[in-house]
Amino acid sequence: MKKLFGALVFMPVIGWAQMSDSLFIKKMSDDIMGNGKAYENLRQLTKNIGGRLAGSAQMTMAENWGAETLKALGADKVYMQECKVPNWNRGGEDKATIIKIGDKKEKRSLDVLALGNSMGSGKKGITAEVLALASFAELEERSDEVKGKIVFFNYGFNPTNLQPFRSYGDAGIYRRIGASRAAKYGAVAILIRSLTEANDNNPHTGVMAYNDTFPKIPAAALGLKDADYLWTTCKRNPSVRVSLFTNGSFLPEATGHNVIAELKGTQFPNEFITVGGHLDSWDVNEGAHDDGAGIVQTMEVMRALKAMNYTPKRTLRFVLFANEENGGAGGDAYAAAAIANNEKHIFALESDAGGFTPRGFGFTTSPEKLSKVMEWKSLFLPYGVYDFRQGGGGSDIGPLNRKLGTSLAGLSPDGQRYFDVHHARSDVFENVNKRELHLGAVNMAALIYLVDKYGL
Amino acid sequence: MKKLFGALVFMPVIGWAQMSDSLFIKKMSDDIMGNGKAYENLRQLTKNIGGRLAGSAQMTMAENWGAETLKALGADKVYMQECKVPNWNRGGEDKATIIKIGDKKEKRSLDVLALGNSMGSGKKGITAEVLALASFAELEERSDEVKGKIVFFNYGFNPTNLQPFRSYGDAGIYRRIGASRAAKYGAVAILIRSLTEANDNNPHTGVMAYNDTFPKIPAAALGLKDADYLWTTCKRNPSVRVSLFTNGSFLPEATGHNVIAELKGTQFPNEFITVGGHLDSWDVNEGAHDDGAGIVQTMEVMRALKAMNYTPKRTLRFVLFANEENGGAGGDAYAAAAIANNEKHIFALESDAGGFTPRGFGFTTSPEKLSKVMEWKSLFLPYGVYDFRQGGGGSDIGPLNRKLGTSLAGLSPDGQRYFDVHHARSDVFENVNKRELHLGAVNMAALIYLVDKYGL
Repeated sequence: MKKLFGALVFMPVIGWAQMSDSLFIKKMSDDIMGNGKAYENLRQLTKNIGGRLAGSAQMTMAENWGAETLKALGADKVYMQECKVPNWNRGGEDKATIIKIGDKKEKRSLDVLALGNSMGSGKKGITAEVLALASFAELEERSDEVKGKIVFFNYGFNPTNLQPFRSYGDAGIYRRIGASRAAKYGAVAILIRSLTEANDNNPHTGVMAYNDTFPKIPAAALGLKDADYLWTTCKRNPSVRVSLFTNGSFLPEATGHNVIAELKGTQFPNEFITVGGHLDSWDVNEGAHDDGAGIVQTMEVMRALKAMNYTPKRTLRFVLFANEENGGAGGDAYAAAAIANNEKHIFALESDAGGFTPRGFGFTTSPEKLSKVMEWKSLFLPYGVYDFRQGGGGSDIGPLNRKLGTSLAGLSPDGQRYFDVHHARSDVFENVNKRELHLGAVNMAALIYLVDKYGL
Repeated sequence: MKKLFGALVFMPVIGWAQMSDSLFIKKMSDDIMGNGKAYENLRQLTKNIGGRLAGSAQMTMAENWGAETLKALGADKVYMQECKVPNWNRGGEDKATIIKIGDKKEKRSLDVLALGNSMGSGKKGITAEVLALASFAELEERSDEVKGKIVFFNYGFNPTNLQPFRSYGDAGIYRRIGASRAAKYGAVAILIRSLTEANDNNPHTGVMAYNDTFPKIPAAALGLKDADYLWTTCKRNPSVRVSLFTNGSFLPEATGHNVIAELKGTQFPNEFITVGGHLDSWDVNEGAHDDGAGIVQTMEVMRALKAMNYTPKRTLRFVLFANEENGGAGGDAYAAAAIANNEKHIFALESDAGGFTPRGFGFTTSPEKLSKVMEWKSLFLPYGVYDFRQGGGGSDIGPLNRKLGTSLAGLSPDGQRYFDVHHARSDVFENVNKRELHLGAVNMAALIYLVDKYGL
């Protein structure tokens, strides 16, 4: 009697259809939290292969590992989708040293990492006086002082943003285009304050691009302790000279692959739903959060659906994208193939914001479809996901939306500590928590299940 | 025009009163996230003082540090509230070794920590055969095999609980009362599987209590790798002998203190609102998450309110409680003094669930008051707090509710990784994230501000 009463009270809130959905999702959750393989797969990817920039031998190893793992997890088919990828090579150890402060000789090394896609300094390095600037605004004001200098942009993260991704968007412009902005006025190299609030001194790399109008000068990131030191030293002294050695260059374009696994749809096999992350990572770390987490969560969604003996209505694609960090070749090739094959892609989900405890999904879709998705929100609450909002997706699935109008979603994990490790040497397996990683996969699996079952 | 339209749309949702509240909270948030001192205070507490069990010299140092820090932060008054605290002493290094497997001599050490309040093995230690049991149910079934044995309870965390605190409640009974349950049937000591899902081998201590009817046998926790090894070894072999050395004992009862700071109320000075955490910690770690985090967040709430030049209507108390880990002397003394002084305590908030990114508050209050609190919920959403629920508080403020009917709240941080470090050597400063810690303080300050302004 007590049970019946409970059921009567419970029903109006959720309804019969969602009752069975909530039970299905709980069953998947129990399986993922209890028997999930994502964490062990991440260990293999990070510890057996490690960093894997597009074009590298490690990336080829990762592709093969990915294909074999997806086969072993029971995909209907697994195949490689070729694409041409940039082949930037760091070329050796990046070094920077303060060699003179005012008239005094000095020999203090600064921990630096060259920015991805930046050109090396040449073997002799670049030695010049540092011009320390707070912002692009100050660059414009002091443009006549720039010639011949190493410009140091010390623009920091704004700690008051509650979502650190906003600070990343804000400060990120110095990494992305700072070199050419400074080269325009004759700078010989740039250093940037790393895009982080971390309390360590790890420099954070990441992609940059040159404006071809100006010389392609070397560009490197400093960890925060060294950035603070250099800033203070420059402010206190009339002249600070630094020697910078970087070795970046592009090797000939390489061949990479999106690794794709499918579970064939039984009712609408020609409607496609994609789940993915990017397999490539920076060379200086293990790419554990970025984006090993998204890769193994993608695999885990497939494993869990198979473990439930779920027969998808639509064709589910599990995609390990080839090239996100220093290009977009993987996502472009995937969308191009979809167009060439006249495929109907109704939905794509990416996990590329770290393997931290999940909080929500950001959607890029129509208001009508967002309303439909919002009706499912209560199903996610027990799994820590409460924040469904318009806006979100992922770099690799973006082309599907732009070219085919596909609805997108991106997993939104808690972001408070993501930029502590993002693109730094500290993005390693040990900094990923098993429960948090698996809980992300639970929510991804639930969303894919619902979109497959009810369409979008 | 566009701005006006935005304002018109915005107003009906939040209302004018809450507009000013949301601005006040954002100002506090900016100050805490940008200039907060909680992280630096935590560094001082954990690195300069370290572990601080009630009765220890470190705890006295911590009390003095706490009082000085609260004074420096500008409290109207700071005072010590005396209480008698238990004085358990670990007494040396805990050791366990497998010395025989079947007929074969062996010498494999197991990493153990004696449980808090447990009695030592004596200098000769205890050497006996291990009886490995999955549960109390198995203990009852096999009670005739227990006599003379070291009983090993290998009851694990249930990984499918989405809130690990539930697994802790479930498995925690083996730590709390397992020794006497086994001693009833003649066991000479117990070992338990640590209350964690961590992937390392750290044992996790924590409080236990004896039933005086039975012999007070030694009790220690094993890390998971050793627990798995011992379990497998016992299952594969007819007999496994272990030597256990622990040294726990109670020294004479000691004097401890709740450290209390006040900001005097300007309108209702006789209505009290308490914010607190517990200053004591286990001896084997730095008590960083448990509960250094709650201590420095408590201090931060006061610092932020002062920085806003906020004049409280009611008297705000910031309390560093004396004894939570192996007793409840601090909370009992605080409630007893409140009764003796005929104080009216309308609300108390505790942070004692780790310094992780906040998700909600659990309340222990009437349905009417919960409804009032629920009206404030939208103010917390920008700060990651969405989950307000009935049920919650903290060990130290519990007596206020039980004896005076005071409404309680407990901060609910994300719990996925709490039990990785809880009561283990790994609960150190390095495992606390600055942004997450400070974001907890933001939400605590917002709740205290609202309760003070609107009453409860």
